Formats: sequence, C-alpha cells, structure tokens
Amino acid sequence: MSDTELRGDDRIEDGERQLDEDDRLKPEFVDAVLEAVDAGDTDEAKRLVEPLHPADIADLFELTPEDRRAPLAAAVAGLLDGDVFAEMNDYVREQLIDALDARQVADIASELDTDDAVAIIEDMDAEDQREVLRAMEPDDRAAIEEALSYPEESAGRLMQRELIAVPEHWTVGDTIDYLRGHEELTTDFWEVFVVDPAHRPVGTCALSWLLRTPRAVSMSDVMQREQTLIPVDMDQEEVSLRFQKYALISAAVIDGSGRLVGMITVDDIVHIIQEEAGEDALLLSGAGEGDINEPVLDSYKARVRWLIANLFTALLASFIISRFEGTIQRMVALATLMPIVAGVGGNAGTQTLAVTVRAMATNQLTQSNTARAIRREIHVALLNGMTIALVIGTGVGFIFANPMLGGVIAAAMMTNILVAGLAGVLVPVVLERLKADPAVSSSVFVTMTTDSIGFLAFLGLATASGLVG
Amino acid sequence: MSDTELRGDDRIEDGERQLDEDDRLKPEFVDAVLEAVDAGDTDEAKRLVEPLHPADIADLFELTPEDRRAPLAAAVAGLLDGDVFAEMNDYVREQLIDALDARQVADIASELDTDDAVAIIEDMDAEDQREVLRAMEPDDRAAIEEALSYPEESAGRLMQRELIAVPEHWTVGDTIDYLRGHEELTTDFWEVFVVDPAHRPVGTCALSWLLRTPRAVSMSDVMQREQTLIPVDMDQEEVSLRFQKYALISAAVIDGSGRLVGMITVDDIVHIIQEEAGEDALLLSGAGEGDINEPVLDSYKARVRWLIANLFTALLASFIISRFEGTIQRMVALATLMPIVAGVGGNAGTQTLAVTVRAMATNQLTQSNTARAIRREIHVALLNGMTIALVIGTGVGFIFANPMLGGVIAAAMMTNILVAGLAGVLVPVVLERLKADPAVSSSVFVTMTTDSIGFLAFLGLATASGLVG
Repeated sequence: MSDTELRGDDRIEDGERQLDEDDRLKPEFVDAVLEAVDAGDTDEAKRLVEPLHPADIADLFELTPEDRRAPLAAAVAGLLDGDVFAEMNDYVREQLIDALDARQVADIASELDTDDAVAIIEDMDAEDQREVLRAMEPDDRAAIEEALSYPEESAGRLMQRELIAVPEHWTVGDTIDYLRGHEELTTDFWEVFVVDPAHRPVGTCALSWLLRTPRAVSMSDVMQREQTLIPVDMDQEEVSLRFQKYALISAAVIDGSGRLVGMITVDDIVHIIQEEAGEDALLLSGAGEGDINEPVLDSYKARVRWLIANLFTALLASFIISRFEGTIQRMVALATLMPIVAGVGGNAGTQTLAVTVRAMATNQLTQSNTARAIRREIHVALLNGMTIALVIGTGVGFIFANPMLGGVIAAAMMTNILVAGLAGVLVPVVLERLKADPAVSSSVFVTMTTDSIGFLAFLGLATASGLVG
Repeated sequence: MSDTELRGDDRIEDGERQLDEDDRLKPEFVDAVLEAVDAGDTDEAKRLVEPLHPADIADLFELTPEDRRAPLAAAVAGLLDGDVFAEMNDYVREQLIDALDARQVADIASELDTDDAVAIIEDMDAEDQREVLRAMEPDDRAAIEEALSYPEESAGRLMQRELIAVPEHWTVGDTIDYLRGHEELTTDFWEVFVVDPAHRPVGTCALSWLLRTPRAVSMSDVMQREQTLIPVDMDQEEVSLRFQKYALISAAVIDGSGRLVGMITVDDIVHIIQEEAGEDALLLSGAGEGDINEPVLDSYKARVRWLIANLFTALLASFIISRFEGTIQRMVALATLMPIVAGVGGNAGTQTLAVTVRAMATNQLTQSNTARAIRREIHVALLNGMTIALVIGTGVGFIFANPMLGGVIAAAMMTNILVAGLAGVLVPVVLERLKADPAVSSSVFVTMTTDSIGFLAFLGLATASGLVG
C-alpha cells in the first residue's frame, strides 16, 4: 500500500520510534511518558507505553527516577504484567513490588512460569512472602514453595516445573496428539523429555526432530540418549557454564534420585551468563554488585570495605618507604620517581590478573595447563619489563643527567614488572586452590605486592648501588 | 541390571570419569591421553577420547602443550570433526588448521552450518582460504563466500543460511509435511519463519506452537507477527544485546531490502554474550584479548602499549611531585604518606569506573539517567571519602603525633576520593559521547586524574597549610 519502499532497518521493531539504534529507549520518549504522567494524562501515558515490548517497559521503569516510579506504575497499571516484572532490574522490581499489595503480587506471579514467579517472590521479606503465597492458587503456591526450598542461585530456583515429559514406548504421533490434545500444557519448551516409569529422563528430543520424523516412529528411536542432566542443587554459575559448553537450548533438572523435576531453558540462563561474565571487572575493583540501581548505602558498604583493605596495603608500602627516609632526604628526586615504578608495576599486575581470572572463570585454566600459563606470563613480563625499563631508564638517565639513576630505575622497573606478572597469575591460582573466589580478593594482594616491591626495589637499589652518596 | 542404585550425579555425563565437578577435564585424564600418544598407542588414545563430547575434545587440545597438539591430532584424527573445531579456542584452532591440508579443511568445513564453517575459514590467510574454498562443493563454497563478504563480527558472519521458511498461505499440516518430506533440510532450527512472496519475513512460529496446533490451521494464524529482525550488517555485540533483551531463541537476518537471508540461533550468541561481558576487566586493565592461548608476542604488543600510556600518566604525577621537592625535603614523612592518597583514590576511581562501564555495556546507563548516576556516585564518594579520611586522618595524627598532618592527609583523601568518583563516571560518559569505547581508554584517564590530584592535593595542602615550616 505504501508507495515508499521499506528499508530493512525500518521493519525491525514496532517500537522504533521509541528506541535508538542500540535498542535503548530514547530520552525524548522517556521524558514524554513522564510528562504525561505528571500532567495526570493517563491515557496519553498508556498510549505511549502500550506498543513497547515487556523488556522495554521494564527499562522505562529503570530509567525513571525513583520517586516517579510509583506514579508511573499507577498510570500504566494495566500494562504491568508478569513479563515486565520478570525483565526488571532486581532493585527496581523490589521497590515497585513493595508498593503493591499482596493480592496484586499474587496475580502477577500466577501468570508466570515458576522460575520467573520465584524471581519476583524470593527477595520479599518473609511476612510479605507468606501473604503473597496465601493469596495464590494451591498448585502455584506448592510449586513456588518447593522452588524456594532450594538454595538461592541454585538450579532449583532457576528451573520451571512446566515441561513436556513422555514415556519411552510412545510414538512420535502419540506425542504430537498429546501436545495437541492438552490445552493446559506449557507452550514454552524447545525439547521433549523422554522418561522411564520412575520418571527418570532417558533421552531428549528436539522439537525439530519430532517434526521431521514420521508419526509411527517410536520416541526411543528419535530421542538423543546422550544428554546433560542438571542436579537440582547445582550452582547457577555451573549451570550457565554447562549451557555454554554444550550449547544447550534446554536441559532436564533432576533430584537426588535421578527423577525429572524441572527444566531450565537457555533464555533463563543468558542473563546469568552475562552477569557472571561481567562481574569480574566489578569484583576485581571491589565494587560489589556494581548495579547502578543499588541503594547508595549498599554500594557504600560494599566498596568501603575494599578501600579500607587497600588503605592497609598502602600502609605497608608507606612503611617500606619510611625505612628509606634517610636516602630520600639525601636525594629527593627519588621521591619524585618512585610512584612510577609502583604504578606501572601495578598496571602490569592488573593485566595479568584480569587474564588469569577470565581464563579461570571460563574453565580454560585448569591444573593441566597452570605451569604453562605461568611460563607464558613470565615471557610476556620479561618482554614488557625490558621495554619499559629501557624507555624509563634512558629517559631518566638523560633528564637527570645521571646514568646511574637511570640504571637503578630500569632495574627496579624490570624487577617489579616480573614480580607483577608472577603475582598476577600465582595469587589467583593459590586462592582458587584454597577454595576462595580469585576475582574477589586477588587484586588487594597483587597491588600490595607491586606497591611494596616497587618502592623496595627502587629505594633499595638506590641505597645499595651507592647512587646516593 | 546393576544392583546398586544410581545416584543423580552419576547419571549426568557419560564422560564423568574424565571430568571434574566443574565439567573440566581431569589432569590425570589429559596425562593418560598424552602418554598414550607419546607411546605411539593410537588405539588407547582413541579409546580414551572417543566417549568425549566435541566440546571436551576441543578442551583437550587447549589443555595440551602446543608442541604436542599435532601428534595428538594425528592419533585421534577420525574423531576430529567439524563440531570439535567449532568448539575450539581460536588460537588453538588456527594452529591445528595450519597443520592440515586444504582438502582436509574443506571436508571439515563442509560438514558444518555456514556460521561454524565461516568461523574456521575466516582466520586463514587469503591464499589458504582460496585453496580450501576451491576444494569445497560449489553450494557450500557460495554460502561461505557470501558470508565472508560481510564485515567481521557482523550478523552476516554469525548467521547460518540453513533455515526453514514457509509461505503465509500454508497450513500447519503443509509445513509439517514439508519438514517430513525433505530430507535435505536442516534439523538445527527452533522456529519456522513465515515469508511473503518477496521472501520478506512476516512472522515467526515457535516449534512448540506448530506442534500444539491442529493441522488445518493456517500458518498466518499461528505465527507471531511481532518479531525481532536482525540487519545483516549489525555488529555482533548489538545482536547479542538484542538476544538477551528479548530472550530470543533464534532470529531472522534480513538484507537491505528486507529479504530473509539467514538465521542466528541463541547457541551461536551465547559465547559472544560471554566474551563481550567478560572483556570489561581485560579492556580496563589494557590486557587486550586476554586469551591464555594467545601467542606471547601478541600479548606483549597489546599490553605494552598500555603500560607505556600508563608510564606517561605516571610521569605527569612525577612532574607534580617534583614541584614540591622543597616541601618534601623539609618533611620527608610526606614522601612516605603520599602514595596512600594516590593509591586509595585510584582504587575508588576504578570501582566507579567498573560500575559505570558495566552499566553502559548492558544498556542500563543512557542519557535519561546519566545525571542521576552522577549524583549517585557523588553520594557514594562522599560517604567513602568521609570514612577513609576519618580513619587515615586519625591514624596519621596519632602515629606522627601531628594533628595538622592528620588533617592534611584527611582533607587530601576526601578530595581525591570525590574526584575519583566524578572521574570514574564522567570519563566513560564523555568517551562514549565521543564514540570511543569507554572500556578501552577510561582507566588511563581515571588513573592519571587520581594520581595527579592525590599528590597535588596532599603536597599542595601540606605546603599551603603551613604544616611544613
């Protein structure tokens, strides 16, 4: 009908007027919605928000200042379904849920698969939780109560109980008829599980196989016997690594006796993969959860602990410097130059640390190749050390017209970069052997090492070499 | 048959004897395989490796020292299929592919979907690439050549051309008959695309819907019209954000005129989500790709650039210190204490930076909430600054029996932590506005700021306050 040819980009999203090229809500759009809410024009607010995908409605709440979220929620209440809450940032959701009564929360949770309902309910305080559960249908309540009985961040919390399981002796036709004949079954599944009489999974059948196979073929002939089963108490990080490694779309969750109790699908895992992979940078700097929606006091508590730890490691460096006050007094240029040795060494240590922690998080660094990884880092450190030592040694030698000073800073820099490379790989390896999370505490130890060795090597060599008369 | 009850865990993997609890190959297993290879016992090596999943065979090669990979490949050649190569680390794969001849590479690539074949071929040098393509079937070759014509890291490289597209006027029954009747169709699909006569996607139908709907229903009644289309030239990072945001299992890829040219499935995206999310820590430290399989010289080149940049920012700090040499000469304790102010400020800056970069990478920080994020960081910085200033000020005041010195270091620390918080959020925000990747270059600027301000505030206040007689 239209006389202009649609460009590819134009057809991507209904919501293209609201979204920028990175699928983020445009600030003009957010402002327009909030202005409508402020003006009490609920119809206009609804009209604007209605075409949005649930994930974008969730984003809209995240982008709205905290004190304006409740009025926004009131204005677009009809559009706030379970899917929107399932997509919402934890902190923003908690705040909104607090503003709703138990009946409303129960209605929202009832719409959702178990995993999403649990995500909404698990963060509420015990009393509110009880109230919401009381307001739910007995079946839904039982499912959620069971999920809540598993440890936090375990497969049991992530899984949905809605799944398709069929007996081995069925044919493809039986399975299709069953799916067509039972309205109440979930539609959110990508594989069918084949179970034995004790309800233990014996195979998995991707829906594409089911569709491409004649009706008369037995399920046991079309299913794949080799399958990845997830124990219900497995930690979500391991679940996500398993999904990645074996490129899974969905996987059966089993209890201690091997019975099928639930299913995890990849869309539930994708945000965990993203979270777990992204937290390295936050953990290495001691920034805690690092969520921009986290309350200020929580961020403060998480961060100040690491700053205090950092303060104490800095005191160790100070103590080392104080041993050389006489040397500094006689040649104050040493005080000028010493932060360079410590700083560049610190950066070199952080580089190695980031590489090592990443390799560990992705299971690429194991006992089999640790020795090789250490040798590799020593090689890189030798090359880096020689380069930086040459640059700084030559520069300082010329600028201060003091080749001896150039030699001292070059040797100190070489030493510190080598130590940084070793510490950057050894500290996380040792922490992991001690069952500590290497991402959490490594950087304090590495920085302590590079600071201390930096000052010690530079000031020590300056003293020992006779540079300072 | 067995008289012992199988525990849940025991049934998880056929390969459990080879894998530890984190799904990593056990060192004993790797050693056993390599010993068999060394002893020339190919049968034993094959017997050991055969039960492994392709992803685990790929891991085995990654865990094997570089010089022993070719003999291992020769020993288990029959087990080295395309799936193994598709799962392998880029560097390890490149090295192995180099050792094979064009005919062998062509055979391996022909087994794979376009996206996996492209991943193997795209890193070869131009001449080897031509040779491999010549050795392939014309159809496969055309598909791969087309994929290679799209920019690196674009949707065109990621997509597979094998997909199921059906016309709108078909019924569910027509679609199922088509799937059953055409042996040559792919089995690797989770959704069916419905297209108009110009082959433009008009809707998507999840296989679960297809299976649950009676045969007579028209495809246009069962399909979902609202769908996420991926332009063929979209960058893979944006593709992965879109998959995450809308919890996609697969998505249609369209060319400039809106025609369906390929499909991306979530299993191709999962490792990109993981890579993109995990690279923050690497980029912030200037560790480049940060892959432990990267050749030493490449790692050296990536890292030394940032160490040199860091060296120059350290020189700026040195220059600032040198302006205060007279002050330090008169009170050498200042040299002892000054690294504390710079170091803790640096850590505070890195914390804020990590949080900001993460929020940007996940599209949580946009123009709409930048002002709020800055205010939030100022609040956190004020609380952190007051705490740390109190601790260090009191400590230094007592230890040096010099309350004035305690006051000076407290004020300098407060200033530097506040500046660190501001720099940690403003630097990446400004870099992003300038279309630079905030993760790549922010930390140099932030460290430069916290170092300079740390020394300047402390030494400047010491001078200005009259502390140093």
